[in-house]
Amino acid sequence: MNLKSVVYILGWMLNIEGALMLMPFLASLVYGEHDGIAFLTIALLCIVIGTIIVFRKPKNMTFFTREGFAVTAFSWILLSILGCLPFVINGDIPSFTNALFETVSGFTTTGTSILDDVEALSHASLLWRSLTHWIGGMGVLVFLLALIPMTGGSTMNIMRAESPGPTVSKLMPKIRQTAFVLYAIYLALTVAEFIALVIARMPAFDALNTAVATAGTGGFGVKATSMGGYSPAIQWVVAVFMMLFGVNFGVYFLLITKRFRAALVHEEARYYLLIILGAVTVIMCSLYAFNISPEMGFMTKLRHAFFQVASVITTTGFTTLDYEIWPQIALVTMVTLMFVGACAGSTGGGIKVSRVLIFFRTVKREITLFFHPKRVMPIKAEQKPVPPEVVRSVSVFLSAYVLVFVISVLLVSLDNNDFTTTFTAVAATMNNIGPGLSKAGPTESFSFFSPFAKYVMMFDMLAGRLELYPMLIMLMPDFWKGMLPHRR
Amino acid sequence: MNLKSVVYILGWMLNIEGALMLMPFLASLVYGEHDGIAFLTIALLCIVIGTIIVFRKPKNMTFFTREGFAVTAFSWILLSILGCLPFVINGDIPSFTNALFETVSGFTTTGTSILDDVEALSHASLLWRSLTHWIGGMGVLVFLLALIPMTGGSTMNIMRAESPGPTVSKLMPKIRQTAFVLYAIYLALTVAEFIALVIARMPAFDALNTAVATAGTGGFGVKATSMGGYSPAIQWVVAVFMMLFGVNFGVYFLLITKRFRAALVHEEARYYLLIILGAVTVIMCSLYAFNISPEMGFMTKLRHAFFQVASVITTTGFTTLDYEIWPQIALVTMVTLMFVGACAGSTGGGIKVSRVLIFFRTVKREITLFFHPKRVMPIKAEQKPVPPEVVRSVSVFLSAYVLVFVISVLLVSLDNNDFTTTFTAVAATMNNIGPGLSKAGPTESFSFFSPFAKYVMMFDMLAGRLELYPMLIMLMPDFWKGMLPHRR
Repeated sequence: MNLKSVVYILGWMLNIEGALMLMPFLASLVYGEHDGIAFLTIALLCIVIGTIIVFRKPKNMTFFTREGFAVTAFSWILLSILGCLPFVINGDIPSFTNALFETVSGFTTTGTSILDDVEALSHASLLWRSLTHWIGGMGVLVFLLALIPMTGGSTMNIMRAESPGPTVSKLMPKIRQTAFVLYAIYLALTVAEFIALVIARMPAFDALNTAVATAGTGGFGVKATSMGGYSPAIQWVVAVFMMLFGVNFGVYFLLITKRFRAALVHEEARYYLLIILGAVTVIMCSLYAFNISPEMGFMTKLRHAFFQVASVITTTGFTTLDYEIWPQIALVTMVTLMFVGACAGSTGGGIKVSRVLIFFRTVKREITLFFHPKRVMPIKAEQKPVPPEVVRSVSVFLSAYVLVFVISVLLVSLDNNDFTTTFTAVAATMNNIGPGLSKAGPTESFSFFSPFAKYVMMFDMLAGRLELYPMLIMLMPDFWKGMLPHRR
Repeated sequence: MNLKSVVYILGWMLNIEGALMLMPFLASLVYGEHDGIAFLTIALLCIVIGTIIVFRKPKNMTFFTREGFAVTAFSWILLSILGCLPFVINGDIPSFTNALFETVSGFTTTGTSILDDVEALSHASLLWRSLTHWIGGMGVLVFLLALIPMTGGSTMNIMRAESPGPTVSKLMPKIRQTAFVLYAIYLALTVAEFIALVIARMPAFDALNTAVATAGTGGFGVKATSMGGYSPAIQWVVAVFMMLFGVNFGVYFLLITKRFRAALVHEEARYYLLIILGAVTVIMCSLYAFNISPEMGFMTKLRHAFFQVASVITTTGFTTLDYEIWPQIALVTMVTLMFVGACAGSTGGGIKVSRVLIFFRTVKREITLFFHPKRVMPIKAEQKPVPPEVVRSVSVFLSAYVLVFVISVLLVSLDNNDFTTTFTAVAATMNNIGPGLSKAGPTESFSFFSPFAKYVMMFDMLAGRLELYPMLIMLMPDFWKGMLPHRR
């Protein structure tokens, strides 16, 4: 393993985290709060260590698949450990485990909180929480790729390890350009949401936090009621932007480059919108069939249904009401959406629509082959045949997913909470959603879980965000053997 | 599609069902009950229709894969419809939907009951319920294969469609001999259990019912308390035999033919026993850690833990106590075992240990390939490489399984029961277990579900027992098109 270059990348990552941590410090200056000093301290620490590390660039910057996974896993863990320290130092989250959980939840854009009273936090802490979503949403390594020149294949191996989806589509001939375009779209959409929210009369600080948290499909809010206390207009804006951040960013690239036809027939995006439409319809029907909240008008119901669906399928986790009073069919639909997730190449989590499509088509092909054993049936996605190794890796991905899920449920059940709580808490963290059902529901905090269960869920959040493999290889002895210097 | 030969096989199946239905009629004579007449009527009806059909044997008895699936799906549905009629006629289960549910639950060896008071049933009805387990356990078509001569490949296609597991192992050179040996082992073990139960002082009628229900890993009992009311000795006997019926019958064949070494190293059987040991250990530890039932001694706890584990992993569904008071880790362990299931080539249900093994190894291989991309790593089972098409079909099987499961949970959630009830009711029926948790728990009946939910669960029970494909192809338009006479 090329350890030197892994460490070099980690150094850059520290610099970036340090620089971003100056933003909450600035916020504390603006609001005249004293606890910003904690952010300044850690920011300087990151920058000093980072600068020392990146002082000398290794000659060999080649990254193979394993280096890509290693640097991804290590940088996300390091980011989280350093990122949680200001919370501990300024006393907003005194327990290290809780602070780490909150930060992992932030970077992985999960949005599950251990805070019982979020409104007691300082402005600096609130902003840092929201910013972690923004950093984690598009991926800090992708950001780095836009900055540091590396050899072609190497950047691809890093991009593949951090980016969500079964395949990585290069929008531009070079990965560096692709990373740059992705971040430009990301920033533009975030700014657009901020402006829309301010126009809808949301206070500027709330709008900033909400915009970055929506962009990363995170879910941390600055109010105890999440989005419940804001006006219908603000809720509509947030709902629409949640949906937009779940679309494959390739579609936006097609729109920018004026390839409207190609954008219109983008298969994954169409199915994604279709699933949203279907889920909203099911929930609306169930609300009328079971006569839930008869005091609400049609448009109010529609707003809540659309908001919750957009929030869950993109794995954001914002809520506008306590949906646990909804009929079971609505709740089970939402739990299913948790697993489906948004589009590949978006900031949303979950299994991803494109994987689910391949997975449906594989089953359909297998059954059709019983009738026509000799028919050649390539699996297609986006009107193109999917290479057999991708089809296989999707099947294996689902197997690994089920495996990690089952083992996590077993471990978290040691806390002896009811089955719904355990099952949906793991589902909500592993899919980077945020709230689950029952004691892990939208109006609750995760502070009551044991430290052991919290560490299991931190692993799940990272495994969910990084799509399993970077975390799973850390469980293999071969991986650590590769870290040792070669014996000759 | 070779419809004539499919109908011919269905005719034989009616004859067999008719003949077996004479047994409950005999029981009613022995106990001087009047309602046995319902069984006699339907038995005669079956035999008359069956005899007319089988009067002329079609010249072409070739069965391809699709004919194998078709005859399997049709015969199980027909068996269930005719098998439920006596319950409706004699008034023991007046509702057709409930009677069909009970019969499907019987033949698929699920053991989920809609009866609120099982002890109110006549002896004839009780015996028929238990017998359905015995018939369904080994499979009625496998029984037929032992009787009707057919061309080699054709029998294999039927055997494959009805027998559980990723591959069918031919114990003997000919399928007919294999089917015969399997039924001989099945009958011998059933008789052995009956004798052991009588020695443990169980009443003969109860012993007969329990033996046939255990053999099929069904779970219908003759008492409201399932096995809870019997002596510890009887409970131990039932627990041990449940475990034995979950072992791959290939192991018994090895023992009979004195290949003890091969039997000892049988991989699937060893893992199966290891999983049982592990699960019992986890449950015992949890009972002490959470101080559950402190009044029970170690051996009493061990008996209950072992009984419940053997019952759930073999998907039998007998219980000795209401395990819902157990800690969550014990319950989640049991839910996990529900999905794992017993060995392939046994009468147990679930995904099967051998499939789970292949599934683990596929994930492990995929991860190892990140480090050693050029290594050739065939997946092995029973010390032999598994053909790639079997590995692929196992992955697709799991995908199809997840798919059917999720859709079923969505449909059953329309009944608006709590999440635990819905989730475990589908898990318990699809894996052919019987009881789930909460309102679907071991002390409850399934009668409260809506007719719609009952039909969904009937589909799941059949899909679970027949391992998905025979039921799934019925949802494909191509299948029904194949039924039409060829246009020229």
